[in-house]
Amino acid sequence: MTAIKAYAAYDAETPLKPFSFERKDIGEKQVQIEILYSGVCHSDIHTAKGDWGPAIYPLVPGHEIVGKITAVGSGVTKFKVGELAGVGCFVDSCRTCHSCKAGDEQLCDEGMTGTYNSYERGTKTPTYGGYSTSITVDEDYTLHISDKLELSGVAPLLCAGITTYSPLRYLKVGKGHKVGVLGLGGLGHMAVKFAASFGAEVTMLSHSPSKEADAKKLGAHRFALTSDPKVMESLANEFDVILNTVSADHDYNAYLNLLNTNGTMIIVGIPSTPAVIPAATLVMKRRSIMGSLIGGIAETQEMLDYCAEHNITSDVEVINMDYINEAYERMNKSDVKYRFVIDMASLKQ
Amino acid sequence: MTAIKAYAAYDAETPLKPFSFERKDIGEKQVQIEILYSGVCHSDIHTAKGDWGPAIYPLVPGHEIVGKITAVGSGVTKFKVGELAGVGCFVDSCRTCHSCKAGDEQLCDEGMTGTYNSYERGTKTPTYGGYSTSITVDEDYTLHISDKLELSGVAPLLCAGITTYSPLRYLKVGKGHKVGVLGLGGLGHMAVKFAASFGAEVTMLSHSPSKEADAKKLGAHRFALTSDPKVMESLANEFDVILNTVSADHDYNAYLNLLNTNGTMIIVGIPSTPAVIPAATLVMKRRSIMGSLIGGIAETQEMLDYCAEHNITSDVEVINMDYINEAYERMNKSDVKYRFVIDMASLKQ
Repeated sequence: MTAIKAYAAYDAETPLKPFSFERKDIGEKQVQIEILYSGVCHSDIHTAKGDWGPAIYPLVPGHEIVGKITAVGSGVTKFKVGELAGVGCFVDSCRTCHSCKAGDEQLCDEGMTGTYNSYERGTKTPTYGGYSTSITVDEDYTLHISDKLELSGVAPLLCAGITTYSPLRYLKVGKGHKVGVLGLGGLGHMAVKFAASFGAEVTMLSHSPSKEADAKKLGAHRFALTSDPKVMESLANEFDVILNTVSADHDYNAYLNLLNTNGTMIIVGIPSTPAVIPAATLVMKRRSIMGSLIGGIAETQEMLDYCAEHNITSDVEVINMDYINEAYERMNKSDVKYRFVIDMASLKQ
Repeated sequence: MTAIKAYAAYDAETPLKPFSFERKDIGEKQVQIEILYSGVCHSDIHTAKGDWGPAIYPLVPGHEIVGKITAVGSGVTKFKVGELAGVGCFVDSCRTCHSCKAGDEQLCDEGMTGTYNSYERGTKTPTYGGYSTSITVDEDYTLHISDKLELSGVAPLLCAGITTYSPLRYLKVGKGHKVGVLGLGGLGHMAVKFAASFGAEVTMLSHSPSKEADAKKLGAHRFALTSDPKVMESLANEFDVILNTVSADHDYNAYLNLLNTNGTMIIVGIPSTPAVIPAATLVMKRRSIMGSLIGGIAETQEMLDYCAEHNITSDVEVINMDYINEAYERMNKSDVKYRFVIDMASLKQ
């Protein structure tokens, strides 16, 4: 067993606090990773607060993990001690269903094993996430991380990055496509970077005029103020793809009307109330709504390699572990550009 | 001018009654068609009753038209007098927008010119549909009809046929696909025929056990009783495509859960209340909802040619014109297998 220092939510109401636990010795096919940086995702907050159902407390959040391999099991072939490695939103899946076999482990029929708030498959041992000094993961669910990029900016690629990369790739977004990105946060800023990098013409859709300059710095070609009815009218039937990153309740229909014939709105956020969609909005232009959830292991590796090659990272604000509760408060006010990342050295001190 | 006998709705409340009007002399690029059969679509009822907004009365419904060419304009190159011809849901469009140029005239940015309840482009002359002895249409919006098939069964192909053919083709449905068809009516019975003909494994999804035998006669390989919770549970993640032909209000979500990873629900019906869709249902399996509206002229011709080659027609009950109000009543009770078609000889007597 390895003693681990961490931060955990002990219940749905109180702030996160220091927590100690032990991780099992590494198995034959596992790698042990010293965590260097851990991104802070909105999912961490929702899960800790029990917004998505009862959590397994104490809960150690964090599923945007990068670090260094400190030990490998005897059967490990893909990683060596000293290499950089990453872990995303899941650490296991059934490996046998149609989705797992197709490389879509995140869509596993039995449900993926979350990096936190799950149980290790077939056991009652909770999984503990990245707000901790070290993690032990099956090599098949571990990612290779390039040493070319600033590591703190790589961590959010494991969730915010793949969540936006995957559906854009699935729809083969590239040159000649007009892409609208709805919401400029952790996901939205990565969506802008990827869509622009793939060659699409990117428009940031936002109700906040203050975001125009930033959106353009990130690579958006145009900015559309969605609170202006004239702007919305002028954009009717405009986009081939709208990547909707908004998790707050909102009117899908207004944005669906901005899709051109055969256009698709990608949904990656899960608002608490269901979408209300008049069928005619879809029927009259052969429009689609498609859901998308992070990405599989192979595609996450492809995304990380793409980012290393094209020098793409997340824009981050690096924080110490003990700043986490303040960070949560600021995230709830959208006061971060665009992702908090915990420097795990601050936990080891 | 040509004197035309017809049946029309004079208002939203009273039964259809005989109506006489004149059609303009044929233009240079127009053909005149003596109507032999006219299919009866649910849209005829909804439009006549003003369900979809105020109608242009007197309203002559009918957009599933087959007949014989009786005259051609001097500039017509595609049709000759004596040939069979068909007219579907629209008789014109802007011809210049992105959708028209792509052959999706039905999705025209300016709106297609309906075969009835529209105005001829740039005029205040109402369009009158197929419950009439003759129609005059631009040759570019007229279809060639094979003489190999029973004509009465061809008429519904112009709406019910293309409405189901087009989205199945768009999604490249074929061998190896599992297709669910929701609703066994005018559209549903054509969906079963096409999906089976394309090589897919077809399941009829119905809450009425009495439909099993008929569905299988039409080509469905399986029947699933949707009112049985155990059946619904056993079909979770089952289908690649569900063609949802239901226009009555219903719970989309129950059926979305039957879609496998990457599955698509095609919506061709327009219920009066909007769909309520929890984002998670789409996100967790990369599922899509896609709307589809009839099809363009070139694709409608392709569908008609496919039907001639594969001996596919609609199952119809041929009626006389003066039976139309009773037919409407029976349609509202789903008492027809599966489309009423008016023998227009009955109007000429």
